[in-house]
Amino acid sequence: MLEQWLPWLDMAGIAVFAASGALVASRKEMDAVGFVLLACVTGFGGGTLRDLLLGNTPVFWLRAPEVVGVAAAAGLLVFFIAHRVENRFRALLWADAVGLSLFAVAGAEIALEAGAAPWAAVLLGVVTATFGGIIRDVISNEVPLILRREIYVTAAAAGAAGFVMLTQAGLWREPAFALGVLTCLLIRALALLRGWSLPAYKGRPGREHPDR
Amino acid sequence: MLEQWLPWLDMAGIAVFAASGALVASRKEMDAVGFVLLACVTGFGGGTLRDLLLGNTPVFWLRAPEVVGVAAAAGLLVFFIAHRVENRFRALLWADAVGLSLFAVAGAEIALEAGAAPWAAVLLGVVTATFGGIIRDVISNEVPLILRREIYVTAAAAGAAGFVMLTQAGLWREPAFALGVLTCLLIRALALLRGWSLPAYKGRPGREHPDR
Amino acid sequence: MLEQWLPWLDMAGIAVFAASGALVASRKEMDAVGFVLLACVTGFGGGTLRDLLLGNTPVFWLRAPEVVGVAAAAGLLVFFIAHRVENRFRALLWADAVGLSLFAVAGAEIALEAGAAPWAAVLLGVVTATFGGIIRDVISNEVPLILRREIYVTAAAAGAAGFVMLTQAGLWREPAFALGVLTCLLIRALALLRGWSLPAYKGRPGREHPDR
Repeated sequence: MLEQWLPWLDMAGIAVFAASGALVASRKEMDAVGFVLLACVTGFGGGTLRDLLLGNTPVFWLRAPEVVGVAAAAGLLVFFIAHRVENRFRALLWADAVGLSLFAVAGAEIALEAGAAPWAAVLLGVVTATFGGIIRDVISNEVPLILRREIYVTAAAAGAAGFVMLTQAGLWREPAFALGVLTCLLIRALALLRGWSLPAYKGRPGREHPDR
Repeated sequence: MLEQWLPWLDMAGIAVFAASGALVASRKEMDAVGFVLLACVTGFGGGTLRDLLLGNTPVFWLRAPEVVGVAAAAGLLVFFIAHRVENRFRALLWADAVGLSLFAVAGAEIALEAGAAPWAAVLLGVVTATFGGIIRDVISNEVPLILRREIYVTAAAAGAAGFVMLTQAGLWREPAFALGVLTCLLIRALALLRGWSLPAYKGRPGREHPDR
Repeated sequence: MLEQWLPWLDMAGIAVFAASGALVASRKEMDAVGFVLLACVTGFGGGTLRDLLLGNTPVFWLRAPEVVGVAAAAGLLVFFIAHRVENRFRALLWADAVGLSLFAVAGAEIALEAGAAPWAAVLLGVVTATFGGIIRDVISNEVPLILRREIYVTAAAAGAAGFVMLTQAGLWREPAFALGVLTCLLIRALALLRGWSLPAYKGRPGREHPDR
């Protein structure tokens, strides 16, 4: 069952992350080729790093033209309809949240299948989910989402860890996958809607010099 | 024929990209070791990512001391002569343009030889051509050239795609290589000289909140 | 002998680099998960790139849970005690300096064992020592330490080159290792304490346009 669904869920994650990359391109007023480039970098970044770390080369998108087509199409679609979106940064945050949830669990699943230990599968899930967004923001000179206050990496870790623990406990992989994705999405959604954040480190005011 | 020329063309691309990295180092007023580091990162970055994505390891420069020597020499040369250059940012743009053209086509050629499909070879050409400049600009806190208005990625894509299509159509690889490089260089040169750009996405003025 | 010590020295390097990453997280007022993420990225970044360049996959930390535990523990420790540190940026510079020294030599040693040529081992030592700090600073929007005036890359290169030359000259690897680490640490310490820097490139004042 999951063997059939996984490619589609992965493709859906690539499409929404690609759209988030294209939305950043729209904030930077790039041209259509720039939209497609940022869409591909964001959609493929996390899975590419996962494949490289595992030694799983050539990386997945060099073996899957349909995946490149989906990311490019998502980028072009955003190029033509982004002006209709009322609040593009809000749309970017939500596309990123859906991609984060799908990739955290799909990344962990792919790592488990490649023979990684459970704890390593959770880490690779987090890497897959967060790295595409990080390079999207670094390349385009935006403040990375992971540096913002709202819970972000924690949501990805919770989704990946939930999925891995449930499968290790003997649950079928399909419901475990669904529960992992929903866990991550719920946490991230509450973080976005209610500004949820974990207690942050606070320096002693007035004691820190900016550059010493 | 191309087997004989390709290493020299690749070396020429590394030398001009390395020079562009050293020119950025001069804008940051780094010391000589910093010049060599940025020269190597810029000269090797694109080809390194291409090798990693293909699983072609150890990466090329670990097997080619002469290539490291060329990049280091280009970095040191710029360290000693950059103060004579009237406009270092202009020199940087042109060195980058020549490197972009050579690497777009050489990257596609190397990918084809490694057995990549034609569409994947075009993508790898673009990756090889653009990534060195991206990490040069990201590491040194400059606005990446791909975020500027003038046509950039499009030129690399046109050069790589032109070369791949001509070889697939049966043309000898030598003239196909030359035509691909000239196509990319011509487009990029016109973009630089005349400020050519593709139609960019424009948000609705006054509707976008900077951070929502 | 060195076979026994190397894993511990490597672990010590990971711990101090991880602490430097967590200190950056404290400057950004991130939450505990952010501390652990930046600790892991900084502690593993250099060695990960070294493994990828050599084709040594899966990368080391996917095969070593104890290493992940050490980095995460260093990140959490800093989360709880950073407010007691009088000057966190100063602590960051010193943790980075110790990690730089250990990784420059350990990276060169691992490259030699993997069969790399001496010159390539020096380069891989520099890459291992500097890359973790570079991605720490790039991800968290800080000015990379390599862009600051004080000698940095040069210290790593001196330590790695010293170690490689001494072993090639026939010295036992244990004293060569110690001398390499002390060379790098001494140079970097003098750079930090006395503001040592190499002669930097200086543009002609008033001739350079900021963006042309």
